[in-house]
Amino acid sequence: MGEPISVLCTPALVLDVDKVKINAQKMIDRYQKLGVQLRPHMKTHKTLECADIMTGGSRRCIVVSTLAEACFYADHGFDDILYAYSVPFDKVERCAALSERLDLFQVLLDHPDALELLRKRPLRDGGQWHTEGVELTGVYVHCGNTYSCRGVEQIHAVAQETIDLTLQFMEKLKAVGISCKSSIGSTPSCSHPVKDMAQLSEVHPGNYVFYDVQQSTIGSCSLEDVAVRVLTRVISHCPHRNQLLIDCGWTGISLDGAGKLPTGYAVIEGHPNLKLVSMTQEHGRVEPSSGQLDYSRYPLGSLLTLIPYHSCAAAAMHSVYHVHSGGRLVGKWMPTRGW
Amino acid sequence: MGEPISVLCTPALVLDVDKVKINAQKMIDRYQKLGVQLRPHMKTHKTLECADIMTGGSRRCIVVSTLAEACFYADHGFDDILYAYSVPFDKVERCAALSERLDLFQVLLDHPDALELLRKRPLRDGGQWHTEGVELTGVYVHCGNTYSCRGVEQIHAVAQETIDLTLQFMEKLKAVGISCKSSIGSTPSCSHPVKDMAQLSEVHPGNYVFYDVQQSTIGSCSLEDVAVRVLTRVISHCPHRNQLLIDCGWTGISLDGAGKLPTGYAVIEGHPNLKLVSMTQEHGRVEPSSGQLDYSRYPLGSLLTLIPYHSCAAAAMHSVYHVHSGGRLVGKWMPTRGW
Repeated sequence: MGEPISVLCTPALVLDVDKVKINAQKMIDRYQKLGVQLRPHMKTHKTLECADIMTGGSRRCIVVSTLAEACFYADHGFDDILYAYSVPFDKVERCAALSERLDLFQVLLDHPDALELLRKRPLRDGGQWHTEGVELTGVYVHCGNTYSCRGVEQIHAVAQETIDLTLQFMEKLKAVGISCKSSIGSTPSCSHPVKDMAQLSEVHPGNYVFYDVQQSTIGSCSLEDVAVRVLTRVISHCPHRNQLLIDCGWTGISLDGAGKLPTGYAVIEGHPNLKLVSMTQEHGRVEPSSGQLDYSRYPLGSLLTLIPYHSCAAAAMHSVYHVHSGGRLVGKWMPTRGW
Repeated sequence: MGEPISVLCTPALVLDVDKVKINAQKMIDRYQKLGVQLRPHMKTHKTLECADIMTGGSRRCIVVSTLAEACFYADHGFDDILYAYSVPFDKVERCAALSERLDLFQVLLDHPDALELLRKRPLRDGGQWHTEGVELTGVYVHCGNTYSCRGVEQIHAVAQETIDLTLQFMEKLKAVGISCKSSIGSTPSCSHPVKDMAQLSEVHPGNYVFYDVQQSTIGSCSLEDVAVRVLTRVISHCPHRNQLLIDCGWTGISLDGAGKLPTGYAVIEGHPNLKLVSMTQEHGRVEPSSGQLDYSRYPLGSLLTLIPYHSCAAAAMHSVYHVHSGGRLVGKWMPTRGW
């Protein structure tokens, strides 16, 4: 602790805790101001520490992507957990058991067969609309088409369309006597709320706590807001290919982002002319976008800093996140894994 | 134990232990017959159980891709470990420490600066050629260009070329008074040895113990030889998109194989008309190659079996492998991770 991040063996995933806190607080403030409940998604990081920061220490009102996450958070005092997944037929018993030890635990439902299943084994839970042991708590919309947006204007247009459709659907439900909550998600739309979002009950973004190159390309954030990096070192020179080898392969940053960026699978911080062109399990191949590599700038052992295309995918490859403040190590966070 | 694999919650990585043993034994027999030392690579599975099977119980003479693997195997009684990685400048001290508690521990070296580094902090080790505390044990060649082959004839041609170049290089070394071992790798070339391979000291394939769709496409094996599957379940029907949703996203099988197969990211066993077209973190989208999906064949909760494009990448996403014999569970293997 207290040592510079350069002491880490590589590849290593490092988190700037100050940026994490700023990203989280901005989202909290944004939805407090709008009067909409923020239900942060845990899928990007899957750690207790980050969940505390995202919930402002309340440990209430979160979304998870796996039942393993739900159990992990429940085991550590979190409650009001939404398992945002079409109720999996093989996990109904585990879901029901979890619901019995929490104040609030909900699952998604998108098919009449799933309703039948839940009628046979209802979860213990609160909510508004009741049908033979199953209660409809709300309508959950992802708004994932914001990921093809470029810039705030396009994000606003997609968000507005999603909200309009959601509100129309809520009206139809109301017309048949059902009134319940509504929630939309996606980091792009929740980073740039439109006014009508205030008519929803909840929002459920998740990636924003780290952000990544993809989000900066969409326009959710600037590259400076990205809290996550993968540290890597030069391990070999390949002058016959005009390439460097680095010690980050797809086990260190994932294969997400293929073909998406002019700089390859990541942005190499401070070296805009370098491109991460391909990876094997434990090697990355780096070459200049143009010209010849000046190998004297990249001696063996020298450190490079990768900004991941997709932080959820990069984080999923690591069992430890190294946390720093101003480049000095302050802790390690351990994510949960599995299903 | 003893239960059918269908009791597993999904996604789950399952291994057919009988196929694992057959794949391992065939490789052992092949190189015993050829009089060449087999040094199996651990990077695909990273487990003790599979390492025992691949070494025929000797726990000697293995290759690893990370120092974490090297330490894991050393901690469990394995020895004669080759860390097949250009000696990483940040891990020299850990390498040296490991060398001091093993009979044989070697690293790769491909740059004069790395030689300088090792001269300052030599590893304790055996070998033939000696220069100020650093001994050259052998020449290591990957033969990775076999991965673009289709069929045994092409594999043979690439293997022959690699062996010829390697032997020419050994001759040049001999001419300056250096005689040492030689080793080539890659599962395709080692699954179909050419006669001249007998002139090498060692081979170091790894993937063969699981094989995968990629290897069957190259011609290393048949699809029936593949020992690994990812079990998944149907979680939703999307008739408006003519798609099924399954509970295997890229956290369950990785993004490796994009654009490589007519059936998408995997082969869906027994359903040649189905294609895994895309994945998010926890969802896979499956559609027919042609025609309309017959949803009555795929009720919610029904099990599908994915044969991974790349077993190394699929295995890397799992912290437990479920091992079965004839479809009945017989154990769990836990891989090591990290660096």
